[in-house]
Amino acid sequence: MRLITFDEGRVGRLDGDDVIELDVPSTRAYFERDGKAGETGERLKLADVRLRAPITPKKFFHTAGNFADHHEELQAVNWSHPVHKGIVFFQNVDAIIGPDDPIVYPEHLTEELDYELELAVIIGKPGKFFGPEEALEHIAGFTVFNDITARDIQRREMESGVFSFSKAIDTFCPIGPYIVTADEIDDMQNLAMQLRVNGDVRQTGHTKQMRVSIPHLVAYHSPQIFSAGDIITTGTVSGVAAVQPNPFDYYLRPGDVVEAEIEGIGTLRNHVVSWQDAHGEPAPEKVGW
Amino acid sequence: MRLITFDEGRVGRLDGDDVIELDVPSTRAYFERDGKAGETGERLKLADVRLRAPITPKKFFHTAGNFADHHEELQAVNWSHPVHKGIVFFQNVDAIIGPDDPIVYPEHLTEELDYELELAVIIGKPGKFFGPEEALEHIAGFTVFNDITARDIQRREMESGVFSFSKAIDTFCPIGPYIVTADEIDDMQNLAMQLRVNGDVRQTGHTKQMRVSIPHLVAYHSPQIFSAGDIITTGTVSGVAAVQPNPFDYYLRPGDVVEAEIEGIGTLRNHVVSWQDAHGEPAPEKVGW
Repeated sequence: MRLITFDEGRVGRLDGDDVIELDVPSTRAYFERDGKAGETGERLKLADVRLRAPITPKKFFHTAGNFADHHEELQAVNWSHPVHKGIVFFQNVDAIIGPDDPIVYPEHLTEELDYELELAVIIGKPGKFFGPEEALEHIAGFTVFNDITARDIQRREMESGVFSFSKAIDTFCPIGPYIVTADEIDDMQNLAMQLRVNGDVRQTGHTKQMRVSIPHLVAYHSPQIFSAGDIITTGTVSGVAAVQPNPFDYYLRPGDVVEAEIEGIGTLRNHVVSWQDAHGEPAPEKVGW
Repeated sequence: MRLITFDEGRVGRLDGDDVIELDVPSTRAYFERDGKAGETGERLKLADVRLRAPITPKKFFHTAGNFADHHEELQAVNWSHPVHKGIVFFQNVDAIIGPDDPIVYPEHLTEELDYELELAVIIGKPGKFFGPEEALEHIAGFTVFNDITARDIQRREMESGVFSFSKAIDTFCPIGPYIVTADEIDDMQNLAMQLRVNGDVRQTGHTKQMRVSIPHLVAYHSPQIFSAGDIITTGTVSGVAAVQPNPFDYYLRPGDVVEAEIEGIGTLRNHVVSWQDAHGEPAPEKVGW
């Protein structure tokens, strides 16, 4: 099933070019009810609805370090820290945007806006402290995540041993275009990944390159508790702007269109807009410390 | 007003030794409704109700670096990173527990369980990208936070430039005992802080020692968006176990009682219990990587 959120928060599933509305207040509630949701009887054309972020989870686990090649590309440019396996932090659920929503460039805060393609896993059954052999029954679906990152802010944060603000600014968390339920994916470790900016391929990877399997990753983080509808991401692949020989030729600028695609899951497209275009006024003064 | 959550999630305010129930589904909803909540007509004895965690926010901003003395005590023991001003990450909203709830010792994951007393600020009015001069109108109340931390896990995480898992394990996030609304606090920068373990004073500090004011801190983090009911913490003071000459004499053990107190806000008391006592079985095997 392809599960969507549309218009002012209605929930539906795709049926070819149609949307069949489901009788549930949110996709998170859909997972909290273990997928037990009837239909409202409304059928709409997909072309006539506006897709929204497919879910707003209670918690959004952001993991890193699962792809060796991303660790190696950062080492090659003398990144301050190794990208170890097991990295986790929580993403900002208020920074989530959906397909075709604008990424607003905060010109007063950053000059180094980067992208990171990731496969995001949707948790169905809640649980905690479980092992890899039980993890599969907690995985309910997948979507695409583009981890927008202000690298200049991230470098400053990492001097203190954290990075979160740099990835948590308003609109920095695009997900979508929909949730593909796990039963539709034959092998979650056999999906090609590609991110394009203005049509140019920037990142390529494959879920078979992960150092640990997705069920193992989910189990590893389960002491932090999973609620139904939670998201856990699985790390990005090589090709981010920060590692390029001339990164400023690659960092995102207003006007850019980013397409994040994962085989079998879908393509998440977002465009970058200036603060002025988004808010109708110049960016505010930066709050210093 | 002292705003409480009690029994199975009912909301009330304290009136001396009584609880006056409020007609609102949660304290988060109370702030979402800008404090507009009637009374149900029920009046109970405080002694007859069970206090719960005062709020489950949408987001729980965990900040650090606001007290110079905590930075200095960590430097003195060669901590891997400076505790810079401006540190932020998101706390696990599913790890929140309330007053007199047990902190469950995960013996399979850590041998270095530490405490950190912090003043937690409750956001009322939502907003983003605002300056220090506007921040005061977003601050609706205060509660006490004890940031339970597995130092051995934290040290490993910080090798990769993050720390989150070490503070996000099940039951590691005690808050309470209630929310004191901002109108009851004459000067939020003039509150004494003290944490005790089994009656012994371990941490002492004072909100006047903060390097930046609370309104400035709130404004600084506002590019990450505040929803009504969000929590933002303000950093811990000196005296954590990890910096003691013999830290293993100070780390928490099952049976310990921790009291985290802030002048005018209240005392949050929790006890540490073994996994066996909490779950009736030994801790599970650790999931490695």
